[in-house]
Amino acid sequence: MLQSLLYPDTVAVIGASGTPGKVGHAVVENLVEGGFKGRVVPINPRLERLLGLPCHENLAAFGESVDLAVIAVPTAAVKAAVKDSIKAGARSIVVITAGFKEVGHAGAALEDEIVQLCHRAHVRMVGPNCLGVINSHHGLNASFAAQMPSPGGISIISQSGALCTAILDWAAARHLGLAKLLSVGNKADLNEIDFLEALGDDDDTKVIVAYLESITSGDEFVKVAQSVSAKKPVVVLKVGTSRAGERAASSHTGSLAGADMAYGAAFRRAGVIRAESFEDLMDAARAFAMQPMPRGNRVAIITNAGGPGIMAADAVENLGMTVAVLGSNSASALRARLPSAASVGNPIDVLGDANPERYAVALNIAQEDSQVDAVIVLLTPQAMTWPAETARAIAASMQGKKPVVAAFMGGKDVMPGRDELVSANLPDYPSPERAARALKVLVERQTWLNRPPRVISRFPVNRRRAERIIGRHLRTGRFQVNEVDGKSLLRAYNFNVPSGQMAYDADEAVEIAFRTGFPVAMKIVSPDIMHKSDFGGVRLGLASPEQVRDAFDLMMLRIGRAFPQASLEGVYVERMAPPGREVIMGMNRDPQFGPMLMFGLGGIFVEVMKDVTFHLAPITAGEAMQMLEQTRSYALLRGVRGQAAVDLDAIAGGLQRISQLVTDFPVITELDINPFIVGDVGHAPMVADVRMTLAEK
Amino acid sequence: MLQSLLYPDTVAVIGASGTPGKVGHAVVENLVEGGFKGRVVPINPRLERLLGLPCHENLAAFGESVDLAVIAVPTAAVKAAVKDSIKAGARSIVVITAGFKEVGHAGAALEDEIVQLCHRAHVRMVGPNCLGVINSHHGLNASFAAQMPSPGGISIISQSGALCTAILDWAAARHLGLAKLLSVGNKADLNEIDFLEALGDDDDTKVIVAYLESITSGDEFVKVAQSVSAKKPVVVLKVGTSRAGERAASSHTGSLAGADMAYGAAFRRAGVIRAESFEDLMDAARAFAMQPMPRGNRVAIITNAGGPGIMAADAVENLGMTVAVLGSNSASALRARLPSAASVGNPIDVLGDANPERYAVALNIAQEDSQVDAVIVLLTPQAMTWPAETARAIAASMQGKKPVVAAFMGGKDVMPGRDELVSANLPDYPSPERAARALKVLVERQTWLNRPPRVISRFPVNRRRAERIIGRHLRTGRFQVNEVDGKSLLRAYNFNVPSGQMAYDADEAVEIAFRTGFPVAMKIVSPDIMHKSDFGGVRLGLASPEQVRDAFDLMMLRIGRAFPQASLEGVYVERMAPPGREVIMGMNRDPQFGPMLMFGLGGIFVEVMKDVTFHLAPITAGEAMQMLEQTRSYALLRGVRGQAAVDLDAIAGGLQRISQLVTDFPVITELDINPFIVGDVGHAPMVADVRMTLAEK
Repeated sequence: MLQSLLYPDTVAVIGASGTPGKVGHAVVENLVEGGFKGRVVPINPRLERLLGLPCHENLAAFGESVDLAVIAVPTAAVKAAVKDSIKAGARSIVVITAGFKEVGHAGAALEDEIVQLCHRAHVRMVGPNCLGVINSHHGLNASFAAQMPSPGGISIISQSGALCTAILDWAAARHLGLAKLLSVGNKADLNEIDFLEALGDDDDTKVIVAYLESITSGDEFVKVAQSVSAKKPVVVLKVGTSRAGERAASSHTGSLAGADMAYGAAFRRAGVIRAESFEDLMDAARAFAMQPMPRGNRVAIITNAGGPGIMAADAVENLGMTVAVLGSNSASALRARLPSAASVGNPIDVLGDANPERYAVALNIAQEDSQVDAVIVLLTPQAMTWPAETARAIAASMQGKKPVVAAFMGGKDVMPGRDELVSANLPDYPSPERAARALKVLVERQTWLNRPPRVISRFPVNRRRAERIIGRHLRTGRFQVNEVDGKSLLRAYNFNVPSGQMAYDADEAVEIAFRTGFPVAMKIVSPDIMHKSDFGGVRLGLASPEQVRDAFDLMMLRIGRAFPQASLEGVYVERMAPPGREVIMGMNRDPQFGPMLMFGLGGIFVEVMKDVTFHLAPITAGEAMQMLEQTRSYALLRGVRGQAAVDLDAIAGGLQRISQLVTDFPVITELDINPFIVGDVGHAPMVADVRMTLAEK
Repeated sequence: MLQSLLYPDTVAVIGASGTPGKVGHAVVENLVEGGFKGRVVPINPRLERLLGLPCHENLAAFGESVDLAVIAVPTAAVKAAVKDSIKAGARSIVVITAGFKEVGHAGAALEDEIVQLCHRAHVRMVGPNCLGVINSHHGLNASFAAQMPSPGGISIISQSGALCTAILDWAAARHLGLAKLLSVGNKADLNEIDFLEALGDDDDTKVIVAYLESITSGDEFVKVAQSVSAKKPVVVLKVGTSRAGERAASSHTGSLAGADMAYGAAFRRAGVIRAESFEDLMDAARAFAMQPMPRGNRVAIITNAGGPGIMAADAVENLGMTVAVLGSNSASALRARLPSAASVGNPIDVLGDANPERYAVALNIAQEDSQVDAVIVLLTPQAMTWPAETARAIAASMQGKKPVVAAFMGGKDVMPGRDELVSANLPDYPSPERAARALKVLVERQTWLNRPPRVISRFPVNRRRAERIIGRHLRTGRFQVNEVDGKSLLRAYNFNVPSGQMAYDADEAVEIAFRTGFPVAMKIVSPDIMHKSDFGGVRLGLASPEQVRDAFDLMMLRIGRAFPQASLEGVYVERMAPPGREVIMGMNRDPQFGPMLMFGLGGIFVEVMKDVTFHLAPITAGEAMQMLEQTRSYALLRGVRGQAAVDLDAIAGGLQRISQLVTDFPVITELDINPFIVGDVGHAPMVADVRMTLAEK
């Protein structure tokens, strides 16, 4: 895939310029100076030669076929250039020129036209409005970025061209190799998902790093990212989520689920590592590109000073990893080979006058210790410190089986050492905390890789009945499903709901109450009244025929006064749900990623503490249980201070059945079961109330 | 203060060495090459001259008096060197030599001896086991660190010598100036608090940065840091707190209050800015040293690319600051002076081909906008970007009234620009996120500076009565105060406690119940039974004489069976507290910082959600209210979903009275009021239960 884009033999540059500083000049210059072994064909009607290459008036004049065309002509001339490229047999086109969708309607229309041209010819296009593409392993710098990176394992997908130049400049300063760099621009044709897929199959790419402002298709992204993540790490910095989530939504699930939550849930599902910042992104990238995966989270720390060792130990613990307890063999081996003043615990302190040999000894012992999964090597520039030599000794001691990361703290004197580390493929960080954080992302990925196979259980349900209920609502244009119908629907999916029935007068209400058994709840049913309980439309715990009769009459009286126009369908009389722990479970359909399930403890835990978890549907039994476990209030469900545990499996089962329901019926856009009442193990849980919204088209 | 240490005229180096690489050589070399204008006196019996200076056999042979003596002889010779120094009139001594307290008992004894020598002579000592001291404004490098920083506004106090060398090396790479660098070593005499105080009065020091592993005296630290913070920023990285807080404690307050919480509370009180990591420490230091304080938290962002602008906007919002809405004058001024494609909102996008002039225009307009409190300037190295020229233009546009920070993203090409920024006193950061975080610490400090004056209210209380109760307990060796006595004590401090009395038989219990009024609670009182309620020793809501009588007899029967040896003092009968919201308030005496007050909502909020706040006593009314406001569950107190607010002032008043009580009686080591029952405004809150522990000596 994308062979002609990333491994072309012949590259035409339409809009090649003789003026240094112009984009059309920079592209040709970069192709020539980047070491491209293929043929570069500059197209410019006013030049004979450019940078030693023969120039052509147009592609027709060139006469031969090209693999890749890079277009850097003014906006108005792009369409013709695309046509010429297609005619010349180009399989891929990079449109660097800006002035399309990003400037308004006319630009968007023009962009559509050129995409159509490409689609009809089965030609793929990058851009428009992009920096271009780089493939260091092919010597290809088809961009106007000044710097060509050396070959390396990190590939970049970026929705910001400027960020590409910043990364290239940073890589140049740190002598760090990159594989591919793909500036996606306006994503008119090829987008981040296409590139993710291509890089997943690219052997030169060890880790994929993406900077994204938007995602073209959430579903597709999750699917592709999940399959790519199984092969290699994908690290994403997603920006622009801070002001999101302000959507008006009628359900709890909707108001708690913002875009940021959805990205979190989607990335978790897909195994995508989410970077918190630009530095975090590149820190993770280097660790993945350069080091093997750890088997666990037990970290050994080697240092030539106490302070940085403590900083690293604090960071390891604060990040939820473990400061390894070294095996007894290690301690004696260290004692035998290090000076007596050295500390042979963990952190291993090789002392301020440590020579390279001492670091090598400690690193070898740490790597061989079966109690150690990963190593952080720290160095401060003291009087007797040789940073470059020490870095070489460390590099020579790398066994390649466990990840090793380094923090050489300082600036001027340690820089030669840091450069040695980079060239030895050992990721170096400016502080112990960042080195620890880099290890942490390796551990996180390993945890994701170790997850059990995802098996979605399907429960036997009465899908036909649910279909009938939903169909009736859609036909009659009732997109808010009332409690009675909602409960029927849930019953079809094997939820327990209290027995109950609609009553149309007080006598009937009493009759139903006798049938279901006291105490009962009574709730007004009207499509016109949203917040029933605010207007006396809900009465709970009615224990006698008199109370039922009084409640019915009062309800009619008061609702009639407050809402003289409301159409009343009747009063729903149902047996009170048994007491138990109230939880809330729901679903909100994210515009990007589809059905997001929510779970939380009811009442204040949701409303005040916002203690809820999200997961993309469909979910497995294990994921449902994780949704419970990841709330802060989980201990309350498991039982604290003598209280019994509630039936956790019943809750997890409920979440899975919601998952099945909303997967079966994409027309359900929002669903809240609030509360879902759950008791001790063995007692059937009960849906006490439900709200549901259907899509209007 | 410390004049002779930091501004000496004559410095002797005892243990001066002719061997390059040795500490005693490095110190003399650093003094000579650092540009010290005073006299350097190397002491070495085997050398005639050293680095062009005459050497002396000993200080007596030198014959004149010295201000500062730096000692770098072997451990065994240090004592004699200290004696010689004192004899030669030294007012300050720096002992670089190691091998004292840090290696064991003999070392500690020797360390004590030399401290005593110094104390008797009123001479101050730094170290032993330290790197030395540097005062760049005096040209003084009395350390064995290779690098002498240029003069600047940042002063460093460090408990790790290696971290000093790392900071010096980093400063050298970034051409960054420092004022003083003080390596505290073993802190045998002068410690971090002395240095904090001295730097507080030092005009060359604009910001104090400290790396601390321990604090010598918590009380003293808070007092000094608070007074220094009023004058200049103090930023501290405190390490080694991750495994702390495992202390066995019988109270809730104790088990929730770890050392880390205590440091947090102490730093908050003192206005100390707490760094989260080494980079955070130096990032904050540069912002404080170089920029004025902001008046608010509204941030303008100037960028030459969209992506980094969004990253900065995300970071600003996530840190709780505001992306400023520019004034309408600004927008029109920007529109008039920037190209039409530029974005004149915020972020202000000066476009990828921005020249230095455009940055200058945008920066001037942003600084002049009254809706803007601070500015972040971002740059990515694009085709037309001139980093150094742009940095100079930015520097020339600085108006000095609002803080401006920069992030020039990249490495090789942007470095000349970053160097220009540093020399123009403009803090630069490698990413938008770190630039935003640096502004955030400025905002935090300004908030602290703006806090209202701290006025501790004193409530009229019956202190004599409390004294009597405590005195009786101490005399009889009862260090656990039982509920009955605890309530009497709290009543003396004007807490409301339910009326009640001790009963010694069932008749008496009934009589008391009639007097206080039903329903009542009954609780066994015995010094031998800790968890009364686990053994049927607590009965609540007894509503009739029969219930009281039954409860008394059953209690006696069961406790007699379970604890045949227990001494029973009787049964406490009290009126049930009225219903209300249960909160918990308490105090735990931190070994470092003294009385730490705790507040949280009762029950699961404390036990499961750990939703509690801490504050050092004594507290003001405002601080007490902050303790409430800073819990996650605060909304529950203020009233949510139609529930009435509870009497917040009653809770704040309770916290202040506990503050007064534990300040009046330092012998109280732990105190838990759990629950404190608080109702609507106007209803007196009630202490339902209390536990208290007194110090055993």
